[in-house]
Amino acid sequence: MRSTMQDVPLSLGRLMQYGTTAYADASVVTATADGTRTRSYGEVGRRVARLANALRDLGITGDERVGTFMWNNAEHLEAYLAIPSMGAVLHTINIRLFPEQVVYVVNHAEDRVVIVDASLAEPFAAMLPEMTTVTHVLVARPDTEQADLSSLEATGRTILRYEDVLEAASEDFAWPEVDERDAAAMCYTSGTTGNPKGVVYSHRSAYLHSMSMAMGDNAGMGPDDRVLPVVPMFHANAWGLPYAAVLVGASLVMPDRWLQAEPLVRLIQETRPTLAGGVPTIFNDVLGWIDEHPSDLRSLRAVLCGGSAVPESLQRALWDRHGVRIQQAWGMTETSPVATSGKPPVGLSDEEAWPYRAGQGRLLGGVEGRLVGGDGEILPHDGEAVGEVEVRGPWITGAYYLDDDPEKFRDGWLRTGDVGTIDRQGFITLTDRAKDVIKSGGEWISSVELENALMGHPDVVEAAVVGIPDEKWQERPLATVVVRSGATVTPEELRDHLAGSFAKWQLPDAWTFIDAVPRTSVGKFDKKVLRRRYADGGLDVQHG
Amino acid sequence: MRSTMQDVPLSLGRLMQYGTTAYADASVVTATADGTRTRSYGEVGRRVARLANALRDLGITGDERVGTFMWNNAEHLEAYLAIPSMGAVLHTINIRLFPEQVVYVVNHAEDRVVIVDASLAEPFAAMLPEMTTVTHVLVARPDTEQADLSSLEATGRTILRYEDVLEAASEDFAWPEVDERDAAAMCYTSGTTGNPKGVVYSHRSAYLHSMSMAMGDNAGMGPDDRVLPVVPMFHANAWGLPYAAVLVGASLVMPDRWLQAEPLVRLIQETRPTLAGGVPTIFNDVLGWIDEHPSDLRSLRAVLCGGSAVPESLQRALWDRHGVRIQQAWGMTETSPVATSGKPPVGLSDEEAWPYRAGQGRLLGGVEGRLVGGDGEILPHDGEAVGEVEVRGPWITGAYYLDDDPEKFRDGWLRTGDVGTIDRQGFITLTDRAKDVIKSGGEWISSVELENALMGHPDVVEAAVVGIPDEKWQERPLATVVVRSGATVTPEELRDHLAGSFAKWQLPDAWTFIDAVPRTSVGKFDKKVLRRRYADGGLDVQHG
Repeated sequence: MRSTMQDVPLSLGRLMQYGTTAYADASVVTATADGTRTRSYGEVGRRVARLANALRDLGITGDERVGTFMWNNAEHLEAYLAIPSMGAVLHTINIRLFPEQVVYVVNHAEDRVVIVDASLAEPFAAMLPEMTTVTHVLVARPDTEQADLSSLEATGRTILRYEDVLEAASEDFAWPEVDERDAAAMCYTSGTTGNPKGVVYSHRSAYLHSMSMAMGDNAGMGPDDRVLPVVPMFHANAWGLPYAAVLVGASLVMPDRWLQAEPLVRLIQETRPTLAGGVPTIFNDVLGWIDEHPSDLRSLRAVLCGGSAVPESLQRALWDRHGVRIQQAWGMTETSPVATSGKPPVGLSDEEAWPYRAGQGRLLGGVEGRLVGGDGEILPHDGEAVGEVEVRGPWITGAYYLDDDPEKFRDGWLRTGDVGTIDRQGFITLTDRAKDVIKSGGEWISSVELENALMGHPDVVEAAVVGIPDEKWQERPLATVVVRSGATVTPEELRDHLAGSFAKWQLPDAWTFIDAVPRTSVGKFDKKVLRRRYADGGLDVQHG
Repeated sequence: MRSTMQDVPLSLGRLMQYGTTAYADASVVTATADGTRTRSYGEVGRRVARLANALRDLGITGDERVGTFMWNNAEHLEAYLAIPSMGAVLHTINIRLFPEQVVYVVNHAEDRVVIVDASLAEPFAAMLPEMTTVTHVLVARPDTEQADLSSLEATGRTILRYEDVLEAASEDFAWPEVDERDAAAMCYTSGTTGNPKGVVYSHRSAYLHSMSMAMGDNAGMGPDDRVLPVVPMFHANAWGLPYAAVLVGASLVMPDRWLQAEPLVRLIQETRPTLAGGVPTIFNDVLGWIDEHPSDLRSLRAVLCGGSAVPESLQRALWDRHGVRIQQAWGMTETSPVATSGKPPVGLSDEEAWPYRAGQGRLLGGVEGRLVGGDGEILPHDGEAVGEVEVRGPWITGAYYLDDDPEKFRDGWLRTGDVGTIDRQGFITLTDRAKDVIKSGGEWISSVELENALMGHPDVVEAAVVGIPDEKWQERPLATVVVRSGATVTPEELRDHLAGSFAKWQLPDAWTFIDAVPRTSVGKFDKKVLRRRYADGGLDVQHG
């Protein structure tokens, strides 16, 4: 029996047309060097049609890819809206990838046109000669008259000013009907092994993810909100905040390239956003700043925080000293990205809620999760059993774009590579990455828990723990430790420090003291480098 | 270019499994004669599996229809969840239809099993002999040991007690995968002309509608909410509140058959819901009660109100005297039903917001609207042009079940039969029903506006205005007026009363005084009867 319902696709074109009409009076505020600039959603809607016409005039047809190499600002929002709405595919390029990775992803996606922020023209020009499919570059921002485009022009590609092409274009565009499963946007992971891998979002997945972000179990976004995406729009869709904001008429506040604590705090105080989203490092910097410079950030009803675990100490400090509530979320490029909501269960006291706030949140409606052990067995959701988290749902990827990676998928589920527990209510608590967990004698030892405990020692600045091969136990933990300048600590002291919190068999029995922990392009510990250095004999290891 | 996203269907089975697990501690509270009874969502989930097994044992396979003839209570929620989740189709039968209409819809839907509330056993038994496809009746509620089933048993069909079959059934059910466009539920309109017509909801439409109800631009439902659906679950899915509540873990408060002001107010004070939904008549009764009996209903952050226009005076009285905020919504069985949200635009003063609260609300994301004039021309959304509202979207019906009615659809849009304006932000203000609007000399005269103005006269109890044929003008307004007992008014006095608010050509030029306005089975003015009485010469008409 078929339903009698109309068959109307979920599409970003509809989302854009709706949001820029029903909420024409909402606005996107963009930070500038010395203040802000504001554009209404109504004006954004008209400029989106101009951009679509301009891109069509440059030859963009069908599902060709248009890249963006931009900060968070009104123009990037216009690109987010225009490109999928015209039927083309938005490719948000991560400006923090290594140059050879940027070239790789642009060539792999076969970007035809790239919109580049004027402030990024120089680094982009250096890579452009290697980009084989890019015919046109649009240089964006309002003040590009002053921008020096000579380095871009020297590449011989067609270089145009974004504002010029918009001005020349019509405000009417015949938005096409799309199949909701067609590609709308793509984003490459910044994987630490091998080349970046592409995830291709559909109109359906982006629309459903936007709806979820607006729901009361998640961020609960509505027309009363002013949303500040600190998380970059070149990184996992800025957690879907821009699309969700347009769908429900929430205004946006964009930090552009001013992501340091001081200008961010100034922006928050001036524009009074109600919701923000960003990684813990940034809000750690913000905390440091506002502890020293009295500030009022209480316009924020919540700060969505993810990308890596948010220390409870940071959350408590922001709440106790500044009335700012962190709400953790967990996800990745492969999950659109938001897969959980950090709201604690209802009915708990503030103190009882803290263990939930410290974890990675509850799986959202629409995202199924399961826990898989080392031998592929399905583990219970009891908050005790530790395994790899696998997820499934309409905004979870089932493959990579033109790139086989069968190890990342199992029976239609995405293997997230994150290891931890799931409780009976679907709350996830992560303890490690699957590739970093130390498999010792059939048991798993969490490298992250050892690192956090080591970094709790007053003389330890940083510590990374990796598994090293062991004939008897398969793997054993090696602790690599950065000691505070001027201090000296011994392995024995550190073992004693850990002994109260860990079983004896979990303690590291190999130690090395280093100057700094190597990091990836996105600032995470690069344990691959550490393991290679150990294998090459490049570390001075003490046993015991 | 296809996306890499997983192809996971939206389904009520997933919604049910998620909500009863992630929010196992949420609960459904049901009113009883002398208090309430409470069941956790976890327990609901286990009973839902038992119900599905029981229905399977009774022979329900594939997409067979299972009817419900029930009040709002925990057992009706279980039926809502179990029947679509097992792949069958839930048919909520409107207990307020005329008996011949109930028989018609049950036979038209070919219901195999009907779950009947014990308190409705007698009236159902009287109709059961005419129901040709029903083989089994389950009699529901916890206290059915005391229920007298003899009238049902006398029909010769198999009569079972709901609790008995649940007890005998297993708690494990292998929930099937469904196509999201397959039928999940159906509901018949209570149309005043001809037979009721069936609308068949899909898993997709019900899931998307639930997501919308939880979004911040709409009701914003979340786990912190306790939701009181006063609107019956046999009427347009109780506005989708039950499914949305389960999806986001909001608890439910069910009034069962105690829908009078006094027990409702007691229930609200005892269970402290945060959100309610119902028709204006009920909340008008509630207002009358709490004006006389000091009560605290301020646990309600909003009351969704629709089904007919909500007078501003009622809204203001509830807000000014009791701190209860009405939020209008507009829709119909054909629109799942919620199509608008009555939240005023942000940034207005309380006084500036009133004209928006008095209208029918803003079209939701996902629901497109257009305004069509008498000659089929598309009218501007300027808040001035008056036409019929047509809508389109993934939870709007595109047909009736096994019933052609081409006049209700145009180019893939649903003709709602509601006449009014749409403004530039998508706010709808209705002035009439298309079939009741008076077409006079190429202009439209709103019968509703005339009625409201007439009923503002101190001596008028009720007034209904209908169009009567006119050779020169095509139609002219006839006012049918019920005068306060003991009072006398003349057509001249009423014309004078109207003259300040209407152009001269809009004033009625035919008048009749009657004892009562005839009403339909759902309590609306039955203008069809009035027009027929006029045509038959059964009205004593004064001209002038």
